[in-house]
Amino acid sequence: MNPTAAVLVIGNEILSGRTKDANLPHIAETLAGIGVRLREARVVPDVEEEIVAAVNALRARYDYVFTTGGIGPTHDDITSACVAKAFGVALERNPEAVARLERHYAPGQLNEARLRMANIPAGGVLIDNPISQAPGFQLGNVFVMAGVPNIMRAMLDGVVPRLVGGPELHARTVACELGEGVIAADLSALQDRHPNLEIGSYPYFRAGYFGVSLVLRGTDEAEVAGAADALAGIIQRLGGTPTVTVGSKG
Amino acid sequence: MNPTAAVLVIGNEILSGRTKDANLPHIAETLAGIGVRLREARVVPDVEEEIVAAVNALRARYDYVFTTGGIGPTHDDITSACVAKAFGVALERNPEAVARLERHYAPGQLNEARLRMANIPAGGVLIDNPISQAPGFQLGNVFVMAGVPNIMRAMLDGVVPRLVGGPELHARTVACELGEGVIAADLSALQDRHPNLEIGSYPYFRAGYFGVSLVLRGTDEAEVAGAADALAGIIQRLGGTPTVTVGSKG
Repeated sequence: MNPTAAVLVIGNEILSGRTKDANLPHIAETLAGIGVRLREARVVPDVEEEIVAAVNALRARYDYVFTTGGIGPTHDDITSACVAKAFGVALERNPEAVARLERHYAPGQLNEARLRMANIPAGGVLIDNPISQAPGFQLGNVFVMAGVPNIMRAMLDGVVPRLVGGPELHARTVACELGEGVIAADLSALQDRHPNLEIGSYPYFRAGYFGVSLVLRGTDEAEVAGAADALAGIIQRLGGTPTVTVGSKG
Repeated sequence: MNPTAAVLVIGNEILSGRTKDANLPHIAETLAGIGVRLREARVVPDVEEEIVAAVNALRARYDYVFTTGGIGPTHDDITSACVAKAFGVALERNPEAVARLERHYAPGQLNEARLRMANIPAGGVLIDNPISQAPGFQLGNVFVMAGVPNIMRAMLDGVVPRLVGGPELHARTVACELGEGVIAADLSALQDRHPNLEIGSYPYFRAGYFGVSLVLRGTDEAEVAGAADALAGIIQRLGGTPTVTVGSKG
């Protein structure tokens, strides 16, 4: 079985529409690459009870939880305190985190606001931030990361070796110019014959043409490839021209 | 008080990283424009129990719930059936929806798979789809829309007149080249003096420069503007050069 994960995006700016989240697709692809299935994502505002409730709901349910956002120096950065509260542990000034900030800032620049970024829940294991030093942390199965995309990516790179992955997920995409409704019945029958595969249907409109990308996923590459070939045959019988590609982006 | 809302994004393709959600920012901005506060978003896979549980959790908690995805003709399109189950009502073939599909498809093209798109929970009020006719629907405070972005936008345009909005939300952005940590203490004090405002701090890196955008939001435009001016004064005293713009994108 593949381990499961959830992402918790923390920040008013995503819910106001000001900022487009750029982290979820990257985390999703990274996890898929090591056989961890992302099963849920939530976006919550910078409100303590919302964050605490979401952290506790998700960590009880999934093998891994990844949070983004809310670990900076300003008043609206409350993620670390909320995770401490969710776990019922103290929020402490972490000496190693302080040392990293001291090396990063020029003398006199490390004020109390910036030192807040060294407040880590008791028992938290730091996550390196090679860009601006202020660390994230892991507490139990929860990984707390920055929201700024380049910092989040660097943190995630550091976290991946700590994760236990699962069997690799293989994908094939079969694209054609037929309408979804034309192929739906045969596709449903194919899904029934392959309960271990996940078959998705995604219509597209591109350069004046419409069509559909049918994505097959599973851990048994031979089954994925065989089902993709069978689907290509179905499409030909229905009068379409299938294109089979490896991966899910075709 | 402003009415509240949640968005429920339904689809494996978002969680696998294959598809980037493009709907959440648009819904967020549209709702903000009519004074409805988006308070939560969730992404769930095409799994019945997940969708039913999320619909019921969100509709109990927020004034409006907007779902996207899962209302097409293929086997993985199960949103309508799940919403019926969440409300405990029957899923029925809707005569008006059938009539719309009959007008849209050429003779002989409206097969059983496509007719599934006319299955609407009992009591559902149709949401127009001017692009490909297959309708969405409103059931209670839940609005079920397509996932394809241009169709979702057209559906949302049709839905907005049905919503009861709230007081307009005004925003000012004060940008400067200071670090977040330099201004954090004064910003926190400003937030304390204006509990009715929501003040967010968003660092940026642009064309080799870094700085921070400070966004102030509230329903009292005079208070928003006054607090923005006060913040500009604080930034000047700290040695920065503030730029104040109307809205939240500065």
